[in-house]
Amino acid sequence: MSMLGLPHHDGSARYVPHQAPGLGETCPVFVRTSASVRTVRIRSVADGEPRYGTAVLDREAGGVRWWRAEVEVRNPVTNYRFLVEDGPTGGGQRWLNARGVFSYDVPDNTDFKLVAYDPPPEWARDAVVYQIFPDRFARSAGAAGRDLPDWAIPCDWDRTPVIGRGPETPYQFYGGDLDGITERLDHLDRLGVNTVYLTPIFPARSNHRYDAAGFDRVDPLLGGDAALARLADAVHGRGWRLLGDITSNHTGDSHQWFVDAISDVGSPEREMYYFDDGGDYESWLGVKSLPKLNWGSAELRRRFHTGPDSVLVRWLRPPYGLDGWRVDVANMTGRRGRDAYTVEVAAALRRAVTDARPDGLVVGEHGHDFTGDLDADGWQGTMNYAGFLRPVWNWLRCAEVELPDFLGVPDGVPRRDGPEVLATMRAFGSLVSWRALTASWLLLGSHDSARIRTVVGDAARQEVAVGLLCTLPGTPMIFAGDELGLTGRNGEDSRTPMPWRRPETWDRSTFDRYRALIALRRSEPALRHGGLRWAYADADSLVFLREGPSGALLVLARRASVGPLRLVGPAPEAGGVEAVNLYGGAPDLRPDPGGGLTLPGDGPTFQVWRVS
Amino acid sequence: MSMLGLPHHDGSARYVPHQAPGLGETCPVFVRTSASVRTVRIRSVADGEPRYGTAVLDREAGGVRWWRAEVEVRNPVTNYRFLVEDGPTGGGQRWLNARGVFSYDVPDNTDFKLVAYDPPPEWARDAVVYQIFPDRFARSAGAAGRDLPDWAIPCDWDRTPVIGRGPETPYQFYGGDLDGITERLDHLDRLGVNTVYLTPIFPARSNHRYDAAGFDRVDPLLGGDAALARLADAVHGRGWRLLGDITSNHTGDSHQWFVDAISDVGSPEREMYYFDDGGDYESWLGVKSLPKLNWGSAELRRRFHTGPDSVLVRWLRPPYGLDGWRVDVANMTGRRGRDAYTVEVAAALRRAVTDARPDGLVVGEHGHDFTGDLDADGWQGTMNYAGFLRPVWNWLRCAEVELPDFLGVPDGVPRRDGPEVLATMRAFGSLVSWRALTASWLLLGSHDSARIRTVVGDAARQEVAVGLLCTLPGTPMIFAGDELGLTGRNGEDSRTPMPWRRPETWDRSTFDRYRALIALRRSEPALRHGGLRWAYADADSLVFLREGPSGALLVLARRASVGPLRLVGPAPEAGGVEAVNLYGGAPDLRPDPGGGLTLPGDGPTFQVWRVS
Repeated sequence: MSMLGLPHHDGSARYVPHQAPGLGETCPVFVRTSASVRTVRIRSVADGEPRYGTAVLDREAGGVRWWRAEVEVRNPVTNYRFLVEDGPTGGGQRWLNARGVFSYDVPDNTDFKLVAYDPPPEWARDAVVYQIFPDRFARSAGAAGRDLPDWAIPCDWDRTPVIGRGPETPYQFYGGDLDGITERLDHLDRLGVNTVYLTPIFPARSNHRYDAAGFDRVDPLLGGDAALARLADAVHGRGWRLLGDITSNHTGDSHQWFVDAISDVGSPEREMYYFDDGGDYESWLGVKSLPKLNWGSAELRRRFHTGPDSVLVRWLRPPYGLDGWRVDVANMTGRRGRDAYTVEVAAALRRAVTDARPDGLVVGEHGHDFTGDLDADGWQGTMNYAGFLRPVWNWLRCAEVELPDFLGVPDGVPRRDGPEVLATMRAFGSLVSWRALTASWLLLGSHDSARIRTVVGDAARQEVAVGLLCTLPGTPMIFAGDELGLTGRNGEDSRTPMPWRRPETWDRSTFDRYRALIALRRSEPALRHGGLRWAYADADSLVFLREGPSGALLVLARRASVGPLRLVGPAPEAGGVEAVNLYGGAPDLRPDPGGGLTLPGDGPTFQVWRVS
Repeated sequence: MSMLGLPHHDGSARYVPHQAPGLGETCPVFVRTSASVRTVRIRSVADGEPRYGTAVLDREAGGVRWWRAEVEVRNPVTNYRFLVEDGPTGGGQRWLNARGVFSYDVPDNTDFKLVAYDPPPEWARDAVVYQIFPDRFARSAGAAGRDLPDWAIPCDWDRTPVIGRGPETPYQFYGGDLDGITERLDHLDRLGVNTVYLTPIFPARSNHRYDAAGFDRVDPLLGGDAALARLADAVHGRGWRLLGDITSNHTGDSHQWFVDAISDVGSPEREMYYFDDGGDYESWLGVKSLPKLNWGSAELRRRFHTGPDSVLVRWLRPPYGLDGWRVDVANMTGRRGRDAYTVEVAAALRRAVTDARPDGLVVGEHGHDFTGDLDADGWQGTMNYAGFLRPVWNWLRCAEVELPDFLGVPDGVPRRDGPEVLATMRAFGSLVSWRALTASWLLLGSHDSARIRTVVGDAARQEVAVGLLCTLPGTPMIFAGDELGLTGRNGEDSRTPMPWRRPETWDRSTFDRYRALIALRRSEPALRHGGLRWAYADADSLVFLREGPSGALLVLARRASVGPLRLVGPAPEAGGVEAVNLYGGAPDLRPDPGGGLTLPGDGPTFQVWRVS
């Protein structure tokens, strides 16, 4: 189904010139339609009531009409959509909203959204994030001399296999440390990323450290506070950013807060957790080593983010200067039974971060439907598992691999076709603002999932996946090692130590593709700031345009060979300009007399052309 | 498209035996599928995280499998949906949620919902509401002797045409009063309604009285407090209910609160409105006679609902004993710029009402998308314009009538086909709980819209409309006069005085259809408490089943002749029982050897059969 004839609007600057509108501001917004459209109305919601206005025809060229309308940003989040009419007034009415074009009445939740809250920091829009699980990334020389804690099962970096499931899983200790990361930043530089995200670095009783034993110092096993300062210096010295990982939903049961709380009913820490009358306590999914924090507690708030030397703020200051946080289990934070502090806590944490440093970033983890927790002045973005990772897996997964458990979803990851994948991307993406969508992290895998290479089965489909990662709206996040073609069947199994000393195992061709696609993204404004216009989807193909003020790119992703595809009108305004291939090795394309471009039919393939 | 083979669940007692679950309770839920389904999983969200469980096969008969699963009502609103798998485990995965069946991943917002808040009162589930606009319903003998206020333009009940649009519209005064209503209750009884809803009855400076000059007494033009007591006695004496109409978004500018506020900057009332530094004030859509209330004001809350003799509560007590309120402009109440008190105020008003009388009902007006404001322990239902009235109008409107303005929506009401109408009904209905959907008011028109007879153009299509009104889930609300076939092109124009003295103008056949359909609804538990399973939709036909514990009804609504329609499996469990016609005059139906029922092909028509 070709979609290029459909009316279009999105939140990018081409359609919404004021990208950070203030409350009360009236903003122009633009709509693109075919020449058959005679009337465009805008509907916005102000103080709970719809308002209608009429768009004016701004310009017309090459069979495309551009309409201009206005929206008052009456509320912190202001919804709007368009009524597009073919033929005489009132005829052929269709709604255009963020989910698509509808010939029937639809609710407001998938309206476009203008957000008057402070925007995410500028740098986040251009970030390419590299996720590091410190125990498995690199060991410095200093690592050898450290005493191991009682829980640790020492493992040989290059010889001990990671046990994906079992009682030893959290205790397999490979001994990666922060100085090890600092020493390997050239690898990141070659890859082209510019933001380092570290999973937790506080002391704990596991290799993943999500069971924090304290938030006051960096784990000595990682090199301690000084090693973090060295890493921060090195990262910032390259002009990059460094993000931490904070657990706001729970601590470890060895955390001093919890030790005090459980041992003394009268302690100030008692209210910071959920104890019942029998002394039992709430924990993350019933895992008793992860006692759940009670955000009804003023004492918790003081310690966590409002106090002068609070957990959240102290690490943002020199000599560490973290540039923000990824917030663990953001989806459960503040939620328990009747308690519903989530949105309020997210806003308070975000405020604490940006009060400490105005360019701070706060990204909340959601493994499933994140849409209700964004655009509320809290998490500026999320980890987009639901609206990106899972549909990409659905589309590109190989038939052979077993993926029995996806973040707790039973019965595997079904194989699905392009239109279904697109429907899921739109269903999630349309429930949040363009800003929240683009500030969210696209990812193909993480320390909590199988690795993309295992999911898709080969390098060719991995290239398609990373192509989508680098060209769809959102911030690419790469789990360290994916760029070398590492494999893993589930979260724990994927926490593969980086094979620095076994370069013969590296998939250098995959690394080169990552590097080239990241470079393309970083060099093409349209990929970072441009709009997204879907062009075509069939079972095996997804085609879209990224259109920025300075030009447009045509992207073809295909999972299998299907034969050539003729597409009319990918760049009608350009008047038949040649499409120049920028990535993927396909030929340049010249429009036929009917204005069509014929895309090559082979696959799996990922191709990018400049079309204007 | 026939939908009877699809898996099904809804919030009715057949599928959710615990209709008012408590927080923390674990509830059984049932799913119906075809025999090809091998696995059913349940996914619920608890404290922000999905949980999965496996449904067990509860029973199987006639090619239908019934599955049983469990949901813990972990939060006040607990989402759940089903993963339905054909073939081997993991194969043919589809999600079943309140919007339908999906072969791709969808967000949580259209999940089924279990609500642990207090339910609406029992009586509301069986209510048939009759809306009365007091100035236009009936004049008692006492009306003649009353002095008219300065603003009133006296009109002759039977001779002066209602001016639909113009400066005189709000001032045309026909002089209906409360004793007039009391005298005409036999008419309501003949019709079969059991709940009287009065638009505002407080003093004002207009015939509609939405510009309240005070909330402390009933307008003397309506007969004053004593007349309300007489009406309440008479209504309650018949075992019926009486609802008032309260403006929580604004008062009139002649209200003493506002007079004090505008004349004295230091008055306690000043904070109850929105004044700017220049002394100008916020008003409803800029209409300065309707100053907007500021729900940030503690003084307003005290006077409105928390104080001992507050506005909201006093009229619920004897001798008036209103059974609840319809809340005007609920959608805007508490919303202005940054202020977002709506959900909190709705909950506070609901609490005040049910504290005063546990069987009190609170229904919030929303002219468009209501879905975000329900299921929050506030409004127990809404006026379902968006998910019922408008799609029914879209489907049944006649081509000839001009409907230029629908509650502010420009460019008329487009004509749409059955599948689009169904899509809109599902889009809105699936965003709220079954409870909120069924407690909401279905309506075909009101004092704010054109009359249904004018919209559809003839009695035959009006019958189809009122058939849907009486058989779809929700509480039917009838705007007084629709049952006589009265006409009106827009809200004001539709405020037609009841033609009591011109019985020759009554459409008695339409009255009889209303009466029969209301009687059917009141006699058939399936129509009040049963589930809803869509069977079929084409451009001109909508077919569905209402299934209660004691039997199922098959409903056919058709707007035009299309030829006979064979439907397989409307009642597969019944094993070929004859379908007995209960309404509409079509023949009883006998299944053919293939289990199909052939529905007659004529139209417009509305037919109901008992199928089990």
